[in-house]
Amino acid sequence: MSLYDDFFYSSEVNQLFSEKETIAFMLTVEAELAAAQASTGLISIENAAYIKQACNVDFIDIPKLKKEIRLGGNAAIPLVQQLMKIVKNSNFEASKYVHYGATSQDIIDTASVLQIKVFINWLNQKIEVLVNELVRLTSTHKGTLMIGRTLLQQAKPITFGLKTAAWLESICRIKESLKESERRLLVLQMAGAVGSQNVNLSHEVVSKLAESLELNTSFSWQSNRDSFSLFACNLGVLSGSLGKIATDISLLMQTEIAEVFEGCALGKGGSSTMPHKRNPVTCSAILANSKRTPGLVSTMLASMNQEHERSAGGWHAEWEVLTQLMMLVGGSIEKSIELIAGLEVDKNRMLQNLEITKGLIYAENVAFALTNTLGKSAAHELVEKACKTALEKKMHLKDILEENKIEISNLDELFKPEKSKGNSIEIVEEILRETQSRFKG
Amino acid sequence: MSLYDDFFYSSEVNQLFSEKETIAFMLTVEAELAAAQASTGLISIENAAYIKQACNVDFIDIPKLKKEIRLGGNAAIPLVQQLMKIVKNSNFEASKYVHYGATSQDIIDTASVLQIKVFINWLNQKIEVLVNELVRLTSTHKGTLMIGRTLLQQAKPITFGLKTAAWLESICRIKESLKESERRLLVLQMAGAVGSQNVNLSHEVVSKLAESLELNTSFSWQSNRDSFSLFACNLGVLSGSLGKIATDISLLMQTEIAEVFEGCALGKGGSSTMPHKRNPVTCSAILANSKRTPGLVSTMLASMNQEHERSAGGWHAEWEVLTQLMMLVGGSIEKSIELIAGLEVDKNRMLQNLEITKGLIYAENVAFALTNTLGKSAAHELVEKACKTALEKKMHLKDILEENKIEISNLDELFKPEKSKGNSIEIVEEILRETQSRFKG
Amino acid sequence: MSLYDDFFYSSEVNQLFSEKETIAFMLTVEAELAAAQASTGLISIENAAYIKQACNVDFIDIPKLKKEIRLGGNAAIPLVQQLMKIVKNSNFEASKYVHYGATSQDIIDTASVLQIKVFINWLNQKIEVLVNELVRLTSTHKGTLMIGRTLLQQAKPITFGLKTAAWLESICRIKESLKESERRLLVLQMAGAVGSQNVNLSHEVVSKLAESLELNTSFSWQSNRDSFSLFACNLGVLSGSLGKIATDISLLMQTEIAEVFEGCALGKGGSSTMPHKRNPVTCSAILANSKRTPGLVSTMLASMNQEHERSAGGWHAEWEVLTQLMMLVGGSIEKSIELIAGLEVDKNRMLQNLEITKGLIYAENVAFALTNTLGKSAAHELVEKACKTALEKKMHLKDILEENKIEISNLDELFKPEKSKGNSIEIVEEILRETQSRFKG
Amino acid sequence: MSLYDDFFYSSEVNQLFSEKETIAFMLTVEAELAAAQASTGLISIENAAYIKQACNVDFIDIPKLKKEIRLGGNAAIPLVQQLMKIVKNSNFEASKYVHYGATSQDIIDTASVLQIKVFINWLNQKIEVLVNELVRLTSTHKGTLMIGRTLLQQAKPITFGLKTAAWLESICRIKESLKESERRLLVLQMAGAVGSQNVNLSHEVVSKLAESLELNTSFSWQSNRDSFSLFACNLGVLSGSLGKIATDISLLMQTEIAEVFEGCALGKGGSSTMPHKRNPVTCSAILANSKRTPGLVSTMLASMNQEHERSAGGWHAEWEVLTQLMMLVGGSIEKSIELIAGLEVDKNRMLQNLEITKGLIYAENVAFALTNTLGKSAAHELVEKACKTALEKKMHLKDILEENKIEISNLDELFKPEKSKGNSIEIVEEILRETQSRFKG
Repeated sequence: MSLYDDFFYSSEVNQLFSEKETIAFMLTVEAELAAAQASTGLISIENAAYIKQACNVDFIDIPKLKKEIRLGGNAAIPLVQQLMKIVKNSNFEASKYVHYGATSQDIIDTASVLQIKVFINWLNQKIEVLVNELVRLTSTHKGTLMIGRTLLQQAKPITFGLKTAAWLESICRIKESLKESERRLLVLQMAGAVGSQNVNLSHEVVSKLAESLELNTSFSWQSNRDSFSLFACNLGVLSGSLGKIATDISLLMQTEIAEVFEGCALGKGGSSTMPHKRNPVTCSAILANSKRTPGLVSTMLASMNQEHERSAGGWHAEWEVLTQLMMLVGGSIEKSIELIAGLEVDKNRMLQNLEITKGLIYAENVAFALTNTLGKSAAHELVEKACKTALEKKMHLKDILEENKIEISNLDELFKPEKSKGNSIEIVEEILRETQSRFKG
Repeated sequence: MSLYDDFFYSSEVNQLFSEKETIAFMLTVEAELAAAQASTGLISIENAAYIKQACNVDFIDIPKLKKEIRLGGNAAIPLVQQLMKIVKNSNFEASKYVHYGATSQDIIDTASVLQIKVFINWLNQKIEVLVNELVRLTSTHKGTLMIGRTLLQQAKPITFGLKTAAWLESICRIKESLKESERRLLVLQMAGAVGSQNVNLSHEVVSKLAESLELNTSFSWQSNRDSFSLFACNLGVLSGSLGKIATDISLLMQTEIAEVFEGCALGKGGSSTMPHKRNPVTCSAILANSKRTPGLVSTMLASMNQEHERSAGGWHAEWEVLTQLMMLVGGSIEKSIELIAGLEVDKNRMLQNLEITKGLIYAENVAFALTNTLGKSAAHELVEKACKTALEKKMHLKDILEENKIEISNLDELFKPEKSKGNSIEIVEEILRETQSRFKG
Repeated sequence: MSLYDDFFYSSEVNQLFSEKETIAFMLTVEAELAAAQASTGLISIENAAYIKQACNVDFIDIPKLKKEIRLGGNAAIPLVQQLMKIVKNSNFEASKYVHYGATSQDIIDTASVLQIKVFINWLNQKIEVLVNELVRLTSTHKGTLMIGRTLLQQAKPITFGLKTAAWLESICRIKESLKESERRLLVLQMAGAVGSQNVNLSHEVVSKLAESLELNTSFSWQSNRDSFSLFACNLGVLSGSLGKIATDISLLMQTEIAEVFEGCALGKGGSSTMPHKRNPVTCSAILANSKRTPGLVSTMLASMNQEHERSAGGWHAEWEVLTQLMMLVGGSIEKSIELIAGLEVDKNRMLQNLEITKGLIYAENVAFALTNTLGKSAAHELVEKACKTALEKKMHLKDILEENKIEISNLDELFKPEKSKGNSIEIVEEILRETQSRFKG
Repeated sequence: MSLYDDFFYSSEVNQLFSEKETIAFMLTVEAELAAAQASTGLISIENAAYIKQACNVDFIDIPKLKKEIRLGGNAAIPLVQQLMKIVKNSNFEASKYVHYGATSQDIIDTASVLQIKVFINWLNQKIEVLVNELVRLTSTHKGTLMIGRTLLQQAKPITFGLKTAAWLESICRIKESLKESERRLLVLQMAGAVGSQNVNLSHEVVSKLAESLELNTSFSWQSNRDSFSLFACNLGVLSGSLGKIATDISLLMQTEIAEVFEGCALGKGGSSTMPHKRNPVTCSAILANSKRTPGLVSTMLASMNQEHERSAGGWHAEWEVLTQLMMLVGGSIEKSIELIAGLEVDKNRMLQNLEITKGLIYAENVAFALTNTLGKSAAHELVEKACKTALEKKMHLKDILEENKIEISNLDELFKPEKSKGNSIEIVEEILRETQSRFKG
């Protein structure tokens, strides 16, 4: 399961979701709950202090806890048992107020939200780095001519910057979407066994706790999991957008196209027996992750039909799946930064590839130029015929036209990619401007 | 495929995505494109008028068009061919300016966005109706006592309004999310073959077109499909939240629980041979839809890795899948309104079911009450033993306690559900207040 | 939903799953049930004859039936009601024995199995045609040299036949798997409301019915849906294997590679404005279908957790999803036959593409040849250096070696693709032999 | 990721897929490849012996290997590098023949197949245990009366054995399917970089290797992944069938139904604060797993469109996903054995629940009995009216009938569940017979 830790994943994110960290977050919730209850006078400040002191993951026997999950069915039950014992050892009275009024799901869900919050902050920073790299790449290549391809066929010239600007926009959009959903996602779960709150989880306690954990308050969402699902969706979309970038790059790296390359580290992507290969190794990881995320998102969505006030199975299905999604996206964003930051662009090869069709990609230009003198249909007919001849004779379309003495004043211009790139440059510039204003705003 | 049109779907939404309507939306784009080009002086106003006049779905030979899609690979190619002929019949010159500068995907994507826009407006109205029904149901039952259930086991009392308020909140959240994503979703696609725009799709033309179609402008997103995918996700989440409601209701309708029922229409859900049955027919449709949407969302996500400037396969995979998602969600929201509007609640049965455990659901109350006099652990021990005896003797816990002369001043109070419902009512009232302010804001 | 009927689907399969045909299959089950009950003396032969006569889809008011599905929750309930009336009109007594002892699911499931049986027969025929086309293509090109590609990079020479033989094997394997699962799939469902059979569905009746419908007998599988799910899986795998073929072909059709092409029909895959394009139109349909099937399979699997003796939602989710899967696979197999039958192979281009790396793809040959004289590591070092020089100087590796006077007796041989194709031809021949024996066996 | 190792998974299966074991399997392939090459005289027996000796996972620096996967893109590349060094240390000459003629994918795929083989053997044993438990449970309860439920409503009596026999059959069917697919699944992958074999991977070498690894031979399936996908599907179906069992049990455990219970271990499923709860903890794990497998299966299917002779991303996506599937199914089968082996059945409660509708579940019996005297329609009318009265007056249907002096000779008989269970017992006995003959056959 983890042989590929460094290949598919980010070690920082892996660390965040380690067993130990996960338990530590749960202990944070228990400690802060006691503190909130103390601050409202529900329990004594001393007792809260004893509890807080005990909420140290190093005191927890994790293997024992894992074994006992089989009995209780979630991690909070054996954790609270251990925690109570630890507190009891230092102060018997305080041990009565451990997990006071709370239910297992309160602790597990809130701890998950805290982890998600740390992950989102990390992710936002990484997205910003990626955006910066894409801005740099786009600026550099806003005028770098290449062929645009549709249905895997050469179509018309664009600039490489136009392609990367579209990547950039897709990342900015999902960044916005993630931001907008945070408000509903980063909320407390603390309402007791059936979501009705109780004397120990008063409105005041819950408010204090939300404040100290820096989360929004919320009523129970124990079996209403739209926010977790939508978060999974946002991750799925981000993974998909990164997969699109990796798709393009892996295709552009094909031996026969060879326009861009993953950065070259010692031994990376190479093959000892095939020295010419530049394997898209980083792309492969991002692509693999983007193939795995849709199924995980569908699991989150399919788990939403949770029964009554707490589900038997639906809730449990989320635990590892949401974590895996974050871990895969964590890996993909890190690899994407590496990919874009190190991307090598072969502008000459791009220009050469524009010549592969021997002028056919400019046929529309010719037809258009002839329309004024010949009318649209005659012009199209002529060009179609010329193209056919060019293909048969394996000659350049321009040469065919000249051979047939077709008079077009600016014939050479029609076959220049820089005259056929449309508004590529203007579009790129506008996207860069917008990106800057988004990020400043 | 369509035998179940009336069971899973909404006839209004089915109508919106009929062949004819779909083509009509594409023709609207072609007509408005010509108009925008005329308004900027690129083509004559007369020619635009001829084109607009021809953009009438009744002129289109749909069976022919469907046959020809096999050749071109999308619906715009044969549609434009037919359209050109129709225009040519009325004015030869005008026919030159049909689909002027545009590419197939410009037309298909923009037409899809227009359909989505109509769908979203429809959906928002339906969501509002559902929200109103949920508000009504929640208000009515804010104090209706029932048992809260976790892991399918009776846990503690809540009110039925607390349950429905949580449903209500989940619908309000996804409504917000849909609203927030609209800005990025309801955008024009109009940038020519490779997304670089061209003289016929100038900045000015595109702006005018966006204005007349009441869409936001956008640069090309031909192969950057995050907004469509995220829209699919939002639909998937809504379907999931409706599925959660149907899950709860279908479980509450079980013969052995019988607390709520789908409204009773003549013959609905009944069985001629089994007169006692109240089949959750409407729930079954909503549940089935909620099982189908996650797979469709995953398809949208898995189709995001689209190659270069237009994909071979990825784009095509979206067409029917996104439509199916909207159709399924259209059906689910209509059925959910019907479900909630007609829901029958048996308050007496809810009260009876609170008695099924013979007081065991109040064991915690007793333990809590005894804590002050006995201390926490002795109190728990006593109650645990009493519960065991109650189970063995099939007696009521209260009777066991009285038999054992356990002195608790307010013993009767401890066994009243209205004393054990926590802040159910306050929470419901707060949620209703928030819902109102959300909808006024 | 159906604008793309001819693009993604097979008209024959669409026809099989039309509303009318679906109802006709249900009526067949009702008619044969009565006949089986008559043959065992349970009902009179006359009554069975009246019922059979009435089981004509042309007598059914389909729009009315569709409306009424909302009430009963499935198509059998209103169908039986209509059928009873029709029978009653001709013979009152006979009407008592309509649907005698059966439950809705008996009729719907058995009718589905009958449709599946027709579909499987159709599919098997189509698979055989595809296999024949693949055998032909493979035989023709067993020695056609081309480059093998790994991770989208040129690796080593193979023959085109080796590639197509691997496609062929994958189709033969899933054909076998489909065959093996038939026995468990093509079974009767006829056990009454809760699967316990009854006096009217005696062992004898059920046996007779199975015999007349040419299905295997089975006990109730009303909520145990493994066979339907596994059938969906087999379809998903077939769709995936066809998608793999379309992936390869669409990549080989890239302008820069141009080794194979979809057959060229008038107007197919062409672009009026881009005459050089050979769009992979058929591939796009197959690829789109292969992107859609995994999500549908996951829905079938996710619907397996069906409650008790008949599910509320899980069963209903299957209806359209399994049909869609068959329809998509029906389309994909037809398109794949068209694709393979019409495939154009450019052997010269394949040879040219073998030269793109200027000999680097043969570097391993050189290293191997030098190992005997220099030892492995020195040989590798030398070749690695030579390759580097070749890349820098943009020269052919052979020229670099000659320039450096590296002595290898058979240097020219090392750079011939036919000497580097391994056992491609022998493997192809063996696969063709095995395919023949499988199909005769 | 692994906090829930003991909850969702099997420790034996986890162990099989540990990093160390995974590498050990790869080393086995390398060792046996050298041995096969020695046995055919391609390399010396001594060299093969040196290689075999070095193929010890304890010699491998796993952290280093994991780091280096980032560069090469798979685990075989750095493993072979380490292995070469280890061999070189003992014998320089032998080191030349490490991984001789093989490609990374040969090693990784074959090692995966070996792991799968061990897993399948383990799984088959576990399935047999489960089958035995289900046979035992079914035999015990072949006559245990309970209500059959459709759409979550009480329908008609069955026996508990009929329900469990249907579970049993579903497990036997997937067992057969798994068995049938083994032949195509448990095959060697050993054909070199592009699947064309080579002098070092001759037909003879490959045959010997297959023999020593006890796998079937096969030509390259490097990018034709139908067998892995179909295996994933079979696992998905098994997981679904186990999920169906857990669905039924969790529903039967509801407080209001309380007919069966998970076995009671100290502290299992209990709640300290809610002593009456019998949480379906084991069911929750099985249900969660069954919600997670469909998405993973869809990922396997969606990854089938692998490019050319080795995929960039598609292959990589399989690695962890197939492993996760095996691990989840490993967990589910172990938990299911525990669930069935420890299942507690409350026959009395089943009988009591048959009385809940106050005779309405027998209405059809009454109507049938009256048909002879009154005719079908009059009989139905009468019974319908009686049922209505029974519901309104909350009286037993039999009492209503008696009150209204409806004369039926055997009235009491009509209301006995044992007279309404159809062929439940005969069906169970037949299924048990078939199961025995399947397993002996």
